[in-house]
Formats: sequence, structure tokens, C-alpha cells
Amino acid sequence: MRKLHQRRWRDKLGLFSAEGEDLVAAAERAGWPPEALLRSGVDVEPRLLDDVSSLGSGSRVIGVYPQRWSDPSGRVMAYLHAVDDPGNVGAVLRSAHALCDGPVLLGPGCADPFSPKAVRASMGSVFARPPGRGDPANLPGTAIALDARGGRPLAEAASDLAGLPGPLVICLGAEREGLPEEILSRAAETVRIPLREGGPESLNVAMAATVALYELGNRMARHV
Amino acid sequence: MRKLHQRRWRDKLGLFSAEGEDLVAAAERAGWPPEALLRSGVDVEPRLLDDVSSLGSGSRVIGVYPQRWSDPSGRVMAYLHAVDDPGNVGAVLRSAHALCDGPVLLGPGCADPFSPKAVRASMGSVFARPPGRGDPANLPGTAIALDARGGRPLAEAASDLAGLPGPLVICLGAEREGLPEEILSRAAETVRIPLREGGPESLNVAMAATVALYELGNRMARHV
Repeated sequence: MRKLHQRRWRDKLGLFSAEGEDLVAAAERAGWPPEALLRSGVDVEPRLLDDVSSLGSGSRVIGVYPQRWSDPSGRVMAYLHAVDDPGNVGAVLRSAHALCDGPVLLGPGCADPFSPKAVRASMGSVFARPPGRGDPANLPGTAIALDARGGRPLAEAASDLAGLPGPLVICLGAEREGLPEEILSRAAETVRIPLREGGPESLNVAMAATVALYELGNRMARHV
Repeated sequence: MRKLHQRRWRDKLGLFSAEGEDLVAAAERAGWPPEALLRSGVDVEPRLLDDVSSLGSGSRVIGVYPQRWSDPSGRVMAYLHAVDDPGNVGAVLRSAHALCDGPVLLGPGCADPFSPKAVRASMGSVFARPPGRGDPANLPGTAIALDARGGRPLAEAASDLAGLPGPLVICLGAEREGLPEEILSRAAETVRIPLREGGPESLNVAMAATVALYELGNRMARHV
């Protein structure tokens, strides 16, 4: 269990752990049976469970699950490029599950969605709608690049975008680096979230993704 | 400096610390002089600075600043009620600075915006647009309640709301508890962000605040 705190071991074993009753219940609702389930005071001594917990406060239950990945599907997906903060990756999983019908595709350099921090930030959405693997050279739909530095305002572009054929893949990069040229040059459109002058140069990437999914996920749902 | 990791001492001394070159530069840009500035290898031994850092990785510079609070101002403000996660409070400071013209008002039970984690999450917006103190019984404008469970869809309500007199105060509560009756009963309107059926019951509070500020901050700016 302690090994599963490390990405190297999660990758090697194809497993991950989820701590706490809410996450274990989310896995059960999603029909995702654990390989092992350790309940404090039932299956193991409380102190032993605290010892293998990734939380300072310890856990009452820890489940170990096989990793699962989604295939591309739905009318609106998000693609993240080199988003290396697990809290942000988990937060986007949750927002996408709430706002659009497709999975979040994770490209090169992204944080592991099965890390303890990402699983917690997803609030169980990692089970309900597992992430997919994203290839920037081969996105499964019409790429829309979200760029803090340029492009049409999102709201203005949204009604046109809703009319585009095939699934939309809303692409976001890491906050400082943005998206690679490979994606910017192939995107059907580059859009931006209008920000006030004199304010921050960009939103946090999970905030930007949520705003884009709110605008486009909603509109696509109405368009269909 | 180590004492400033604790809220009790920050409150008592009216000070807080900011670590790293980006935050110290943000304070300088905002014209907010430090009471003390410790640069690794210049003012203090690197090991000593690492010892008082709130970051595992240590810091190259730490500034100590007097706390400052904003008075209510602008056309759109956010009010947070019992949002106790410092990362969320800091993230909303950043989003509000990017998307609307007023400060974030913090009500009872909110995390300290001057905690190291909140300051980091704000990415310097805590200096550029300090938070205000919020009183749920006396909000400085027309209260709009954001509630995951009910009310008109945000986009539908937004154009009406933009026509309301006085500043708008967009109110958000903690994710599980929501807003207190005191605010719900006085709000001019309750709005919700439409979420997909079968998905999460709510967005993360910082995500919800960002979507509301995007929708209303933008619209108010166009309306004026």
C-alpha cells in the first residue's frame, strides 16, 4: 500500500489506492470492485492503517483498485497537456464529470490521475468517469485551443463551435508554457477567457478548464 | 517567521509571510513594502531560511508583510461563507482579480487568506487585490446566492442581474453546507450552475466562484 504512494509503483502494478468512505463509496457506485479493502478495526489494526495512509490524519478505510482508462467518447472532451499538479488534474476530472459528457484526456507531462492527491481532488469522479490517454498528434475530434494570450473570446466563439462536426476537444496547457505548437497549429479555433487589464495573466488551469467546459458543455447539450 | 505559519500568531501580530521571488515581486508591484525581507545567502544563511520556510523545498526569499484588507468597492464582489480550505480561498482571490472589479469578502469560518497556502494559491493576487471582511448580515450590495441545489440557471439569470442597481455580491458557501438561511432569505436571486444528471452534486467552491465571476464579471463590464 505504501508503494502505491509512488507513481513508479502505481504504473508498474496498474493499481492505485483511494482513502476514505466517500471515495470507496464512489468506486462502489461506479461498479469498480477493489482488489483489496482495508477497514480500520475490521480488517486491520487502526494504527497499521494509519501507517500506510497518505493522509496525515489517517484513514478509516483504504481500497486498492485496478487502474482503468476511458476511451474517447461524447460530444465534449477536455485534453490537458503537461498539467503537472495532481490537484489540478483531479479538479478537472470532477468539473468535466459535472459539466460535459466526455472524459478528460491526459497528454504527455500530466500528473498521474491515480495519485492520492488527484484521486482526492476528483472527489470520486475518477471512478465515475475515468480519464483517457491523450495523444497531441492524434486528438479524437475537433481541437479547440484555450490560450490565455490570444484568440476569440470564449463566449463569442461558443455558438459557432457548437455547430462544428464531431466531438470537440478543448485543449489546455500548463499555466506558464501554454499549449505546444503541434496543437495550436492544428486547432480549428483558438479561444481565450477575457481577463481584466492589470490583473493576472491567466487563470489557474483547472479554473480555465471549468469555465470552458461550463460554456461549451452546456451549449453543446442544448445544441444536440 | 515560524510563528507566522500559525493563524493565531498572524492574527496577533497582524503580519504574514510570502515565500518565493514571484510573490515578493507581486508585493513590490502592488506597492506593499515588507517589514522584513530575507534573501538566501544575502541576508541569511540558506540553511536558516530553509528552516523557517513553510515549503518542503525551502525558499530563496521570504518577505514579512503587514496584513491589509480592502473595503468593499466595484460593481461585482464575491462573498465566501465558511470556505475553510486555504487553497480555495487563495484561488478565488486570483480568479476575482482576473474576472471582476471588486474584492473577495470573507465571512465567518473562512480560511485565513494570509496563510502560506492561501497566499501561494492567490499567485500574488492577495497583494494586488486584498480580501475584504464580509458580514453576512450586512452585505455591501445586492446579494446573489449561488446554490448547487436550486434557483435559475446562471446564464439565464445573468442578463437580468446585470441590470440590478448597486454592486452585486455573489455569495458562495462551503461545498457540503451551502449558504446559511440568513443569506438565502435576503438574496435578490438564487442561481445555480447547471450540472449534468448523474454527475457530482456540486463543483468545487473555487470552480463555482470562478464560473459565476466569469459570467457576471464579464457581463457587468459590458453593461457599464
